[in-house]
Amino acid sequence: MTFAATILTLYPEMFPGPLGVSLAGRALERGDWSCEAVQIRDFATDRHRTVDDTPAGGGAGMVLKPDVLGRALESVSDERPILAMTPRGKPIAQERIRAIAAGPGVTILCGRFEGFDERLFDAYPQVEEVSLADIVLSGGETAAIAILDACIRLLPGVMGAACSGVEESFEDGLIEYPQYTRPQDWEGRTIPEVLRSGDHAKIAAWRKARAEEDTRLRRPDLWERYSGARDQPASGARRND
Amino acid sequence: MTFAATILTLYPEMFPGPLGVSLAGRALERGDWSCEAVQIRDFATDRHRTVDDTPAGGGAGMVLKPDVLGRALESVSDERPILAMTPRGKPIAQERIRAIAAGPGVTILCGRFEGFDERLFDAYPQVEEVSLADIVLSGGETAAIAILDACIRLLPGVMGAACSGVEESFEDGLIEYPQYTRPQDWEGRTIPEVLRSGDHAKIAAWRKARAEEDTRLRRPDLWERYSGARDQPASGARRND
Repeated sequence: MTFAATILTLYPEMFPGPLGVSLAGRALERGDWSCEAVQIRDFATDRHRTVDDTPAGGGAGMVLKPDVLGRALESVSDERPILAMTPRGKPIAQERIRAIAAGPGVTILCGRFEGFDERLFDAYPQVEEVSLADIVLSGGETAAIAILDACIRLLPGVMGAACSGVEESFEDGLIEYPQYTRPQDWEGRTIPEVLRSGDHAKIAAWRKARAEEDTRLRRPDLWERYSGARDQPASGARRND
Repeated sequence: MTFAATILTLYPEMFPGPLGVSLAGRALERGDWSCEAVQIRDFATDRHRTVDDTPAGGGAGMVLKPDVLGRALESVSDERPILAMTPRGKPIAQERIRAIAAGPGVTILCGRFEGFDERLFDAYPQVEEVSLADIVLSGGETAAIAILDACIRLLPGVMGAACSGVEESFEDGLIEYPQYTRPQDWEGRTIPEVLRSGDHAKIAAWRKARAEEDTRLRRPDLWERYSGARDQPASGARRND
């Protein structure tokens, strides 16, 4: 089954872009996913093909017109989830990525300028307002690329059996433990003894302890959720190491 | 002054990619920023040009070798900040973006597979481990593109005077208020009355109230920080509306 990605954008030439290379690029060639970039401007109806206008109430920048966006959305109306990239949105999380990747595809609406006319979300409540990170981008396109990258790598066959993403960052609410590889001794810095022990139980325990310690130190926000959930019987059985 | 971006990557062909289009593309043509993508593989020394090896202690995936990465980093050693994209890193925020954009440029190290050998960060403590979002990407490249996008739009002259980013999402710790534009009446949905009043003080008050309300409802994490900081005299004067 092909995972169908449709991007509504003023810059269709940005796609597939980096997703045409490497893992995602090979998957695109194989037909594991498809990439359709739709020009929002094609849904403007005046002779200047106007897509934006000044903000009601004044202020800098331009706002994307609801009538144009509405027609663009109607053109792709199907059972796939629709994300609108906006800093006002809900921060994307790996859990949502996993759910999207398990489905038939996704439509992503990319804003520019000062964003979307708010009435769009009243008229189309099925549109999810999603934010990539607490940074301001020039438009939703680079965010869409990152989100598609995260989805595509999870599609069946894309990563191969060897790294099918069972034990991954964020999947269990922790950041990943630190990794090491050869050389054993790199300019006087050696790989932790335990990782060379061959004792799988000890290695698993060390990795879990480091994942917990690093999450606590580096991501107190994740740690708070994890240590709260850990006290609940339902999620205590999630890891099996 | 040119903002110099160097990306250390196994896929230099991904750059400038979407950053060669639109706002960032025009800025690149004008010389407002430069984009150098360096092939990490060029720093491998064996005849197979090996960049990765299996994880010490076992497990799926491959880990980027510290010796190869170390040589790659040495090749770009200068006064610019160095970011390593990794889900173990500190989440990037607009404040850091603004600081980077105000400097001479940035070097971004992109991982693939299971990431970097941890000894790299012991040997080069100046390298900042940075995470884009709590999602797992196929590599650091798509994250680097989003971060560069956020930096480039802030460079002098790139956005133009009209939208120089004074009043933006996250800048004051709040998400942005909703925006509206013509038509006044879109399929029975109208622009809020206050925005058509012409009363600038009333409009500013409405926008601030909506930014606060939406932040409280949509981003309780940001709201907690904002409402805490608001009680401090130092940050109470930040906004002037």
